[in-house]
Amino acid sequence: MPELRQRFDAVRQRTLQLAAPLSAEDACVQSMPDASPAKWHLAHTTWFFETFVLGQELPFDPDFRVLFNSYYQQVGERHPRAQRGLLARPSLARVRDYRAAVDERMHALLARELAPPLAALVELGLQHEQQHQELLLTDIKHLLSCHPLWPAYQPLETAAAESAQPAGLAWLPVERGLQEIGHAADGFAFDNERPRHQVFLAGCEIASRPVSNREFLRFVEAGGYAQPQWWLAEGWDWCCAQRLAHPWYWRQATAGWQEFSLHGALPLDGRRPVAHVSYYEADAYARWAGARLPTEAEWEVAWAAAMARQPARQALHPPAMAGDGLGVVWEWTQSSYAPYPGFRTADGAVGEYNGKFMVNQYVLRGSSSATPPGHERLTYRNFFPATARWQFTGIRLARDLG
Amino acid sequence: MPELRQRFDAVRQRTLQLAAPLSAEDACVQSMPDASPAKWHLAHTTWFFETFVLGQELPFDPDFRVLFNSYYQQVGERHPRAQRGLLARPSLARVRDYRAAVDERMHALLARELAPPLAALVELGLQHEQQHQELLLTDIKHLLSCHPLWPAYQPLETAAAESAQPAGLAWLPVERGLQEIGHAADGFAFDNERPRHQVFLAGCEIASRPVSNREFLRFVEAGGYAQPQWWLAEGWDWCCAQRLAHPWYWRQATAGWQEFSLHGALPLDGRRPVAHVSYYEADAYARWAGARLPTEAEWEVAWAAAMARQPARQALHPPAMAGDGLGVVWEWTQSSYAPYPGFRTADGAVGEYNGKFMVNQYVLRGSSSATPPGHERLTYRNFFPATARWQFTGIRLARDLG
Amino acid sequence: MPELRQRFDAVRQRTLQLAAPLSAEDACVQSMPDASPAKWHLAHTTWFFETFVLGQELPFDPDFRVLFNSYYQQVGERHPRAQRGLLARPSLARVRDYRAAVDERMHALLARELAPPLAALVELGLQHEQQHQELLLTDIKHLLSCHPLWPAYQPLETAAAESAQPAGLAWLPVERGLQEIGHAADGFAFDNERPRHQVFLAGCEIASRPVSNREFLRFVEAGGYAQPQWWLAEGWDWCCAQRLAHPWYWRQATAGWQEFSLHGALPLDGRRPVAHVSYYEADAYARWAGARLPTEAEWEVAWAAAMARQPARQALHPPAMAGDGLGVVWEWTQSSYAPYPGFRTADGAVGEYNGKFMVNQYVLRGSSSATPPGHERLTYRNFFPATARWQFTGIRLARDLG
Amino acid sequence: MPELRQRFDAVRQRTLQLAAPLSAEDACVQSMPDASPAKWHLAHTTWFFETFVLGQELPFDPDFRVLFNSYYQQVGERHPRAQRGLLARPSLARVRDYRAAVDERMHALLARELAPPLAALVELGLQHEQQHQELLLTDIKHLLSCHPLWPAYQPLETAAAESAQPAGLAWLPVERGLQEIGHAADGFAFDNERPRHQVFLAGCEIASRPVSNREFLRFVEAGGYAQPQWWLAEGWDWCCAQRLAHPWYWRQATAGWQEFSLHGALPLDGRRPVAHVSYYEADAYARWAGARLPTEAEWEVAWAAAMARQPARQALHPPAMAGDGLGVVWEWTQSSYAPYPGFRTADGAVGEYNGKFMVNQYVLRGSSSATPPGHERLTYRNFFPATARWQFTGIRLARDLG
Repeated sequence: MPELRQRFDAVRQRTLQLAAPLSAEDACVQSMPDASPAKWHLAHTTWFFETFVLGQELPFDPDFRVLFNSYYQQVGERHPRAQRGLLARPSLARVRDYRAAVDERMHALLARELAPPLAALVELGLQHEQQHQELLLTDIKHLLSCHPLWPAYQPLETAAAESAQPAGLAWLPVERGLQEIGHAADGFAFDNERPRHQVFLAGCEIASRPVSNREFLRFVEAGGYAQPQWWLAEGWDWCCAQRLAHPWYWRQATAGWQEFSLHGALPLDGRRPVAHVSYYEADAYARWAGARLPTEAEWEVAWAAAMARQPARQALHPPAMAGDGLGVVWEWTQSSYAPYPGFRTADGAVGEYNGKFMVNQYVLRGSSSATPPGHERLTYRNFFPATARWQFTGIRLARDLG
Repeated sequence: MPELRQRFDAVRQRTLQLAAPLSAEDACVQSMPDASPAKWHLAHTTWFFETFVLGQELPFDPDFRVLFNSYYQQVGERHPRAQRGLLARPSLARVRDYRAAVDERMHALLARELAPPLAALVELGLQHEQQHQELLLTDIKHLLSCHPLWPAYQPLETAAAESAQPAGLAWLPVERGLQEIGHAADGFAFDNERPRHQVFLAGCEIASRPVSNREFLRFVEAGGYAQPQWWLAEGWDWCCAQRLAHPWYWRQATAGWQEFSLHGALPLDGRRPVAHVSYYEADAYARWAGARLPTEAEWEVAWAAAMARQPARQALHPPAMAGDGLGVVWEWTQSSYAPYPGFRTADGAVGEYNGKFMVNQYVLRGSSSATPPGHERLTYRNFFPATARWQFTGIRLARDLG
Repeated sequence: MPELRQRFDAVRQRTLQLAAPLSAEDACVQSMPDASPAKWHLAHTTWFFETFVLGQELPFDPDFRVLFNSYYQQVGERHPRAQRGLLARPSLARVRDYRAAVDERMHALLARELAPPLAALVELGLQHEQQHQELLLTDIKHLLSCHPLWPAYQPLETAAAESAQPAGLAWLPVERGLQEIGHAADGFAFDNERPRHQVFLAGCEIASRPVSNREFLRFVEAGGYAQPQWWLAEGWDWCCAQRLAHPWYWRQATAGWQEFSLHGALPLDGRRPVAHVSYYEADAYARWAGARLPTEAEWEVAWAAAMARQPARQALHPPAMAGDGLGVVWEWTQSSYAPYPGFRTADGAVGEYNGKFMVNQYVLRGSSSATPPGHERLTYRNFFPATARWQFTGIRLARDLG
Repeated sequence: MPELRQRFDAVRQRTLQLAAPLSAEDACVQSMPDASPAKWHLAHTTWFFETFVLGQELPFDPDFRVLFNSYYQQVGERHPRAQRGLLARPSLARVRDYRAAVDERMHALLARELAPPLAALVELGLQHEQQHQELLLTDIKHLLSCHPLWPAYQPLETAAAESAQPAGLAWLPVERGLQEIGHAADGFAFDNERPRHQVFLAGCEIASRPVSNREFLRFVEAGGYAQPQWWLAEGWDWCCAQRLAHPWYWRQATAGWQEFSLHGALPLDGRRPVAHVSYYEADAYARWAGARLPTEAEWEVAWAAAMARQPARQALHPPAMAGDGLGVVWEWTQSSYAPYPGFRTADGAVGEYNGKFMVNQYVLRGSSSATPPGHERLTYRNFFPATARWQFTGIRLARDLG
């Protein structure tokens, strides 16, 4: 299956490219339980192919079965998530050897014609690795942000010429009536995007682009983080307990507001989308702005046409917005992550992929500038707890019809 | 408004009756942050009328404005929820005086014809007090359960003759198609039940009655609390961290399984509905049983006819089930607590009543044997976090169509 | 033994007098794990006589054996210390009945001539009850301080005429050489005061009176709580984590500094001794003042003569100091609580009284205004962790010879 | 000062040798707040010379002033101790460059004749580095023990021929009377070993060697970790909360008891001294054995003669004991870490070296097999909290005279 082989190599290679700027030490440290070391991402994505595609009969190292199992109960024991940073061993070099050895076995496999279920597992492994490519960036960003000097993952070579001021925010109609959402039969999609099904929408308006840093700064400077009336009760308690006053990665320097990025500290650019806000902050901002977050159905219906024409853009830092602003930040919806009507998980350990996380998380739609090009999809359902801030998460507003 | 006066007296009187078996000490202690002392319930329900109906110009005691404010940010400072048990003062006797004084002022008010908005606030205060009547029982139940001797709130005078074995569990159809849910114009309803709106249902089947103790015991004895495959990932972590092996208030005595009740320890009665289970346990049980929890829309559509003919039953302990088993335990749905399309909160502090809690909670439908008769409603949306176990919470199954 | 009977009645009666101003609610609530409800003190001191003197054959209530056991592992199970406040039952009234019933049995016993070991146990029970009399006051003080209104245990009837300004602080010599400390054979003493033994003192000077509020206020206003150089490293971390800026029970009101007392809020009186400071604060103050805390041996040698002529004074709040200032606040020493050379514990459960606490605590000497008159003793070794602030703990300085 | 230059090179070189087996990843990870990464030890010991000897005028990197300051408040800001593992940068390679650059500047300095105070600071820096050499080993041991595979720091090349069975435990007299302890004028000693002073000893007997693994195993197998009567109350609570049943680094494998070592897992060798026990365990064992821990004065008087003839032995794992067993494990004393009479700290930041830790810690005497040869001293006062188990801490018994 030469096409799959080509795609396999492209995805696997890209992961190594993303890890290339990292020293053995950068790749080993875990900065919080939610974030994993880059070395662990490199190994776990490999483990996925070894476990679910190649099988565990001839493992590269039998200990890796436990060390690099993330959360698959049916595969067996797992090294605790919060202790991934304690794995000084195996070394980064040995993890690269692991990747090479598994790639070699995969190449042998991909030289043959694969039965559709096996080919689907290979594709799942590639999509899985793409998810970890984004996590690798968000996790290394978090680690570097914990260093008092805010070092860069990759210095900014030359400031890209940015597009001008983002367009004013317009409101686009989402029509009332029965609609369909979810993934239809063809092409890859995760199980949680299926089945395609009908929903009734009351109708609303949705913002033509995400909220910008400049807009969010107004909320900050108006005292929004000190005014309970905008906040969900739980969000307010969280905001007070953490003594928050602005988004994650912002700081006030003598020269003005700065934002931590994978290029290190940057002046806060008002034309870029606000990023790294929690669900609570997104919801509070929306209420302050006289709007609300869209539901995921509203979002999907609104952008059904736009996503198709979405060009692949990628950057280590969300660029200044142009057009509809899709693909620069993940967009919080007000929809709790839940099964679609008739949702079914796969049999076996792979069935643990998505379904068991469907509680106390909120759906994000779209994609971010850190998402691998080609990985985004109209029906994609990303999800994080309401407190999560280390992903490239932003805000698109909606509002009820008058 | 003699009718409102009569209703006012009935509700207020009933609260006192519920508190009557409690000593000053019983009424003062707080057994966990989620539960409030009975004395606090007595005072806070009174504070609600004083604050929102009478106004705070001539307060009974100006300090009470802070001490008995639950969560209304717009009213001002609040004594911290987790420290309500530190309020040894005012005494229970003085809180009774507070009730009498506010009742007297309310009587004067109710002698007049009230403008509809004011009458609506009085009604809201009564509905609010009925909610606290149920909480008073669940909270005192929790407190007594923390005592090593499991004392009774009210001894069981003579074992009521229970109905026989509950009927076998049948599956009732919920039809596919556009349906309406939510409260229509007439009669009292909370803001979160509005507006009535259309939803599209895929169709399903719903159980004819809640899960019984006998059924749930089978899950317990089959090792369900030790098998991760039935559990949401977050539920499993919670279950392991708490080392759970059975529902809250169950224990294995030498004579067999017992259940703590407001009558003290009782032998576990297989005919009664299982109660005091968390969302996680309800969801795990449903998966083990090859079913799922209903959505709140499915639930409401299924019981639209039944609730109307629901007789008022009440008991300190959920009775053996008969018929549809409605009204004995609150029933977890898989629906995250969220605003209905077009939801609006009231202006002012009263607008904080429901809306600001719409995150990370799950909707329960129906009512329990501890709910004051007449307080239940088809469109009622109760809500608690997925971990909550001290309410009378049970399980009704649903399943997708073949 | 009429003398012992008389003493028994006096001590037991006094405990009831101390509890007399408390409502059932005041007596039930536990404000922190270290503090016990007054009801629990009333019951536990009774339990001590029932368990160790009368024996447990005919208990007043067999459940009390567990409920009111403090820490005696050899007596059996214990209700957890941090959950004493959950014991809404038995009621205060029933605990009073318990006291009366045990007193009656004790009276029968005390009508006989007792063998010396049994008489010694009665005396230990009385000394034990006196210790709890002081704890009852410090614990109720803590509870009332947690109330936002700072209510009084007993209102101040009429401001006592206080002695004038305390004398200037002088330095008294403690001579270099071999000395003896610890309790000699006659009269009651706790096991931890024995055996009397030799110590070599390097010689020092000790302050003629404790540190006053006025003196300590200077440390506060000079920024002492924000300057790490005065603090033990562990104390500094604790001070920062708790964001401390002054002693426990002080607050800055618009009218100036106030101090919470058992009479409610009082203006801070500079002539009184500073109280409710932790070991860390005492040590930091001493270093700031160019001095240090005395060792317990230095303390005991210094005051050997003075304590004998110490008149019994008692007050709910430490009075303005006069003379040597002994008996108004417990005085922190720099001595870690440790066994004297040759220390032996008694056989059986009573042996758990003192010895098992000899780690990570610091010795306090003297007595406070809340100590029952006659309970103080030159060789008395009180002890608390370095963080404890809810006792009447103050500071007496020492300094090395030039 | 060629002698000091030679000594400087020897100590500095040895630190590099100890770090040589470690990868960049091994040297970067922090396994708990108490333990530091090897890279940090390498940098901090260098920082000490740069800061206190060379001065900060021409720093290698100005950021290092904060990054590698441990606890010197007077030097300025400090990177938080618990976050040393987040310092992926600077890399290990750059820290080696730092060492080389500072060594070069030190060489220039040491080519001159130094004033005695400056020479004393150099010597303090070397003693300080030797302390960190031992910590480097204990910290890397802890890190490797957190790995599920118990990897080795250095594999055991060939099992050393061990001496035979340790001699039976004999009791040596420590005489009653006035004695002197503490460091006299000549030679290096830390400030906390001074001044030499008189103490009165009641007389006792001290064990001829530390407790062996075989002896401690008897306590384990007799159920000592489940019997509260041997434990200090605080130790018992700690033991229960942590569910302990044996020393740190022991485990029961199918082949019998094993012990984690810097050579990886080893069968538990009964002839070696028990190590890695907390003060609580040491104290409980002593009580179970009918003995007690010695005071530090008893210890110092007992071994005054022996330490002088102590040969330098070193090993990565405590060897089987021979003779007096000195120098294989640090020996807990019952003495709380406190200032000697007349103790004075140095002026300036160096004065923070020892004095500010004199609370809630217990003194250990002797040295361990991980202590750099020549660093041990009769009057040496090591100190750790009662819970510490990751150091090479063992037990020597004492007992009162009949």
